[in-house]
Amino acid sequence: MSLDKEKNILIVGAGLCGSLLAIRLGQLGFNVCLTEKRSDIRTTTVDGGRSINLALSDRGLKALRMVGLEHKIREICIPMYGRMLHFENGETKLSPYSGRQDEYINSVSRNDLNRILIEEADIHPNVEILFDHDCIDVNIDESKAQFTFNGKERIIDTDIIIGTDGAGSIVRKELFDKRNDEKLSIEFLDHGYKELEIPPGESGGYQIEKNALHIWPRGDYMIIALPNMDGSFTVTMFNAYQGANSFEEIDQTGFRKYIEDGFSDLMPFIEDLEKSYHENPVGKLGTVKCYPWQDEGKTLIMGDAAHAIVPFYGQGMNASFEDVTIFNEVLDQGHENWESLFQAFQTRRHPSAVAIADLAVDNFYEMRDHVADEDFIKKRQLEMKLEQEYPAYYSKYSLVTFKEDLPYEEAKAKGRAQDEYLLKLVKEKALSEIDLNKLVETLTQ
Amino acid sequence: MSLDKEKNILIVGAGLCGSLLAIRLGQLGFNVCLTEKRSDIRTTTVDGGRSINLALSDRGLKALRMVGLEHKIREICIPMYGRMLHFENGETKLSPYSGRQDEYINSVSRNDLNRILIEEADIHPNVEILFDHDCIDVNIDESKAQFTFNGKERIIDTDIIIGTDGAGSIVRKELFDKRNDEKLSIEFLDHGYKELEIPPGESGGYQIEKNALHIWPRGDYMIIALPNMDGSFTVTMFNAYQGANSFEEIDQTGFRKYIEDGFSDLMPFIEDLEKSYHENPVGKLGTVKCYPWQDEGKTLIMGDAAHAIVPFYGQGMNASFEDVTIFNEVLDQGHENWESLFQAFQTRRHPSAVAIADLAVDNFYEMRDHVADEDFIKKRQLEMKLEQEYPAYYSKYSLVTFKEDLPYEEAKAKGRAQDEYLLKLVKEKALSEIDLNKLVETLTQ
Repeated sequence: MSLDKEKNILIVGAGLCGSLLAIRLGQLGFNVCLTEKRSDIRTTTVDGGRSINLALSDRGLKALRMVGLEHKIREICIPMYGRMLHFENGETKLSPYSGRQDEYINSVSRNDLNRILIEEADIHPNVEILFDHDCIDVNIDESKAQFTFNGKERIIDTDIIIGTDGAGSIVRKELFDKRNDEKLSIEFLDHGYKELEIPPGESGGYQIEKNALHIWPRGDYMIIALPNMDGSFTVTMFNAYQGANSFEEIDQTGFRKYIEDGFSDLMPFIEDLEKSYHENPVGKLGTVKCYPWQDEGKTLIMGDAAHAIVPFYGQGMNASFEDVTIFNEVLDQGHENWESLFQAFQTRRHPSAVAIADLAVDNFYEMRDHVADEDFIKKRQLEMKLEQEYPAYYSKYSLVTFKEDLPYEEAKAKGRAQDEYLLKLVKEKALSEIDLNKLVETLTQ
Repeated sequence: MSLDKEKNILIVGAGLCGSLLAIRLGQLGFNVCLTEKRSDIRTTTVDGGRSINLALSDRGLKALRMVGLEHKIREICIPMYGRMLHFENGETKLSPYSGRQDEYINSVSRNDLNRILIEEADIHPNVEILFDHDCIDVNIDESKAQFTFNGKERIIDTDIIIGTDGAGSIVRKELFDKRNDEKLSIEFLDHGYKELEIPPGESGGYQIEKNALHIWPRGDYMIIALPNMDGSFTVTMFNAYQGANSFEEIDQTGFRKYIEDGFSDLMPFIEDLEKSYHENPVGKLGTVKCYPWQDEGKTLIMGDAAHAIVPFYGQGMNASFEDVTIFNEVLDQGHENWESLFQAFQTRRHPSAVAIADLAVDNFYEMRDHVADEDFIKKRQLEMKLEQEYPAYYSKYSLVTFKEDLPYEEAKAKGRAQDEYLLKLVKEKALSEIDLNKLVETLTQ
């Protein structure tokens, strides 16, 4: 017996994960209907026209390679070779992401990426895309989904429903209302974020270093900036909601003073930053972990719906794309029925989702508290040296970001053990005293 | 400055926690409105007339003592001095809860207890009770709650809202929709439960030992029974939803065969058990942990709304009652405003709530897997001996159940350490070889 490929598959949510999944299932000949609550991204302006960008790295690129889109997407990518650290005294320092030349991450526009994925999905005659379809209810047992479309109610009757409808997933909610053994954890940090903008220079150029992810680490708060293709930067500030240097405090004492006091090298852009500060909302930073992800081979959740994470490892999109890679691999194994397929997928993928969620929270504290810390900088220097001289050695960051075939849970276990060892070492010894050969032997055994 | 006592307090949910809180706040002179979605328990039959009972122990009794109801409630209590273990071969063995005579737990009817609490709350002219008021929405910022009452909508405008509306709390949902830093975890076991009944004997007597909590431990599944005042027992079966000895399997192979095969000493009651098996639903077993519990001194959640736990330590009601004890103590400290009061309450109480939630899940595995285990029985024998001969020594169970002033988190830490130590000891030595004096010295230092 082999998998019934004639089933109708409804994918709820045409964001990054849903549209990539639709492409892959379309390529494999499945009957797919992809729905999206927003209007067609190809003909509308979204997010009030703001540029939101994301870090695309090897795991995401691997998934795009699978569907044949890597080259097309690389054309809209800006390589970022390292973290450009901006200290309080105005000095900067570039901290490379890897000691190897070909390992870097990319800044990419969420909208441009999503538009290309939608265009590609739409090429397949067996993939139907329905925009302006807002999913308001799902009948898990009967595989029916209810939408509002043009102010009217519409029911779609299908065989299989895959929810890629994000962190607040309605498919997940209905799946768990039906089941009786679900586990769900939703945790928000006591920090939120706000997106600002540095526009292109007068001649259209980049006003700060183009090929880096900029970080202004300040202990309990920080600012980051990623480049856009048009010469602008999307700037994100992370602050507590309340207390010292919080959004509440900034609203009281003034944004301009906040930048002047702690981020003087951003003062040249203060007019634009201040304008966007007052226009844009504060976003929440949450982690969603849950299980199980499937029910009876008829319902499945993927991407943020199954494992939303905080953005501090730049892995949110990459993890969602990797879901599609893994789903494809599990499909390839040849399952007898959809339940066995879905169960194999969740069993294989869930530990990875938990691991990257934990790593992302770890990195929040690392970026916030330690990026400017002396021992931490010494440890990064040691890691760079090791990566340059020993191709077999990968830092935790490199394991997560560049080892595209290594499951996140293994990257986490190995990376944490290495981190602990190296931090202890740099506290005890000067860099010049460390025997690198012996160290690499210890770390890679 | 001192606390503004003139504020109107709306308590949503007149279950065990809400009604006890209403009594205490009523006694202290606050203006309280207590709402309940069900009809008045004093004039209606609830739960289809089923007897549902609970284990009331020292922490719960302490809270009842505070409001002056201990004696009245003790009149409807049936003391249970130990666990009566029913083995597969039909043999039974009584395992006392404590080596001290005056330490036991009590079986009490949830309905009778709730009715007495409602009667008591209603005595206070400053406590208004509104039945048939189903809370459907809460405006956290404006302290307004929306109800359906007699098919119509009703808004109650108040100063402070306290949600004691259970595990699926609507107050908690609205509190978290408003906040941006919430943490929420909801975990269901892959086991559910079903309540059955053993009726009184023909002459009205108890058909099995009255003064014990009966357990039929069978590895991955079990049955328990607690006595009621009318001579009946409420029997609860705990089984996985799927797999061996699951509800699914029992539905297929038949309840009678299930009892015959594994619980032969229950066969005399098979007619009644079978009838209730087919009538009653399978309930879910969930743990809810969340934080924070308050917002701006205007909203607070307590009881199951803040910390629902599984029933395996018999502490669900006791923990909710203890919330009221602790709230009263924090009130006594003299806070300047409600926000400071609510914050002090959640800071003090949250670690206890997490601890008892973890202990309750532990005990699920202990009752299920180990109660009939040889090492475990040996350890219990050793603990009994210690408790009989050394008044200063308390087992983990006794710390949780009988040390009414010890915070759950301390009981958990101390109890787990002791358990580990004793289990290791009984595996290494015969009971007769153990030097009790030395052991107690080690454990109580």
